[in-house]
Amino acid sequence: MKLISTLFLLFILSNNSSGSPPRGIRSRTPCKRLIFYFHDIIYNGKNLRNATSAIIGSPAWANKTILAGKNHFGDLVVFDDPVTLDNNLHSTPVGRAQGIYVYDKKEIFTAWLGFSFVFNSTKHRGSITFAGADPLMNKTRDVSVIGGTGDFFMARGIATIMTDSFEGEVYFRLRVDIKLYECW
Amino acid sequence: MKLISTLFLLFILSNNSSGSPPRGIRSRTPCKRLIFYFHDIIYNGKNLRNATSAIIGSPAWANKTILAGKNHFGDLVVFDDPVTLDNNLHSTPVGRAQGIYVYDKKEIFTAWLGFSFVFNSTKHRGSITFAGADPLMNKTRDVSVIGGTGDFFMARGIATIMTDSFEGEVYFRLRVDIKLYECW
Amino acid sequence: MKLISTLFLLFILSNNSSGSPPRGIRSRTPCKRLIFYFHDIIYNGKNLRNATSAIIGSPAWANKTILAGKNHFGDLVVFDDPVTLDNNLHSTPVGRAQGIYVYDKKEIFTAWLGFSFVFNSTKHRGSITFAGADPLMNKTRDVSVIGGTGDFFMARGIATIMTDSFEGEVYFRLRVDIKLYECW
Repeated sequence: MKLISTLFLLFILSNNSSGSPPRGIRSRTPCKRLIFYFHDIIYNGKNLRNATSAIIGSPAWANKTILAGKNHFGDLVVFDDPVTLDNNLHSTPVGRAQGIYVYDKKEIFTAWLGFSFVFNSTKHRGSITFAGADPLMNKTRDVSVIGGTGDFFMARGIATIMTDSFEGEVYFRLRVDIKLYECW
Repeated sequence: MKLISTLFLLFILSNNSSGSPPRGIRSRTPCKRLIFYFHDIIYNGKNLRNATSAIIGSPAWANKTILAGKNHFGDLVVFDDPVTLDNNLHSTPVGRAQGIYVYDKKEIFTAWLGFSFVFNSTKHRGSITFAGADPLMNKTRDVSVIGGTGDFFMARGIATIMTDSFEGEVYFRLRVDIKLYECW
Repeated sequence: MKLISTLFLLFILSNNSSGSPPRGIRSRTPCKRLIFYFHDIIYNGKNLRNATSAIIGSPAWANKTILAGKNHFGDLVVFDDPVTLDNNLHSTPVGRAQGIYVYDKKEIFTAWLGFSFVFNSTKHRGSITFAGADPLMNKTRDVSVIGGTGDFFMARGIATIMTDSFEGEVYFRLRVDIKLYECW
């Protein structure tokens, strides 16, 4: 009897995880969790040496040295921002955040992101790639981890982003809480 | 004998789904399916109030208030389009489609997309992120669902896009048939 | 006794592969491998007929007919490049590489990519979509395969990119070694 029930249990387990797509049965406990900060200093016509990002696309009514009106709608920014373990801009970077963001709404501040964290240190080697909407007036917002390489081979997950600080329209710092749910 | 064959069956099932990568054995039946429409009104120099998108990048030979010649090759558009349940522009939006598209071929109309559906209603909360080529002269075309958050936590799938309507070079409406094959 | 140990083995297998996220147990042997080349001829103000790509975004200090100084930082390029099976630009293309790359660092050449391979031949039908950082001074670099359609339905994997050739700032050829680890 015990044997039969064990077999039944095995069958259920096997069945759940066989060829069919997972339907809400996978664990939502991260298999890896990492917290980083990154720091964005946008080019404003005067700070080329320190700037880590620059406006490279803008709508017809704007230019590329000042963020556009209408909540920056249409400004496309490329960045190469230092990634640090704490919230100090001057801490030794452990990687770079590289990619684009674009402000995409006239009425409020909101953006769309496509970027990667690139690591090449003794601690981490490889990359994590992110994409998604960033409604940046929300205290926290989730974007998708859509892939990874090296130490983060085939990673997928969710990154919870929080604006940790900002100074006018030149500097902001994001806290990124990366939760991977697929680790190979 | 029956026990042995049951065990054998279990072994096959387990083996298929164990640590090894899936090789064509997963079900192609969606675990979730959703159909939406979204509406794009591009800024043409005169319609700022109604426009939901704007050209923010263009090739050297073009400007940002008229879509470029050569099948719009090189025009990069940012958008914040209303998402509706039916094909009526004036229906109450259930979300926003936010991101970019770029026309990428001189000889025919074709585009590349990176965007998200953002939901914040009683019905859906969360986001679905899409990427891929959009050969828009084809009646239907598939792009990839590369991630999701909230109600669409960790989603993956295919979105079949159809141009449902267009008016000159100012308005178009897309029907998006989302089929998720990974639901957590 | 043998039965018990078989059951135990089955239990382990089932457990590994059940609802919980994979934790480093999946095989790193590709389920599909493909090698292609693609060829990028950038518009320089004089070669519109032959050009397969064009600068469509640039920083405030640059223009769109010459790649910018500072390691092209801020140049955004849209492309529709022929994909070939060998390294000959004049071989019959088997597909197109379509999307964007953006140079994203002041100090060295490095880029961020978002693009798809689009196939519509007897051999391959469908698309593969890529995203990630491309530190192009490295001999090889890995980007993520974030999705696929058609023959590459739901694909995920890693693409190892190598600069196979370049001629000044007008032509380059990339070799792309695609290793899929998820095949449906």
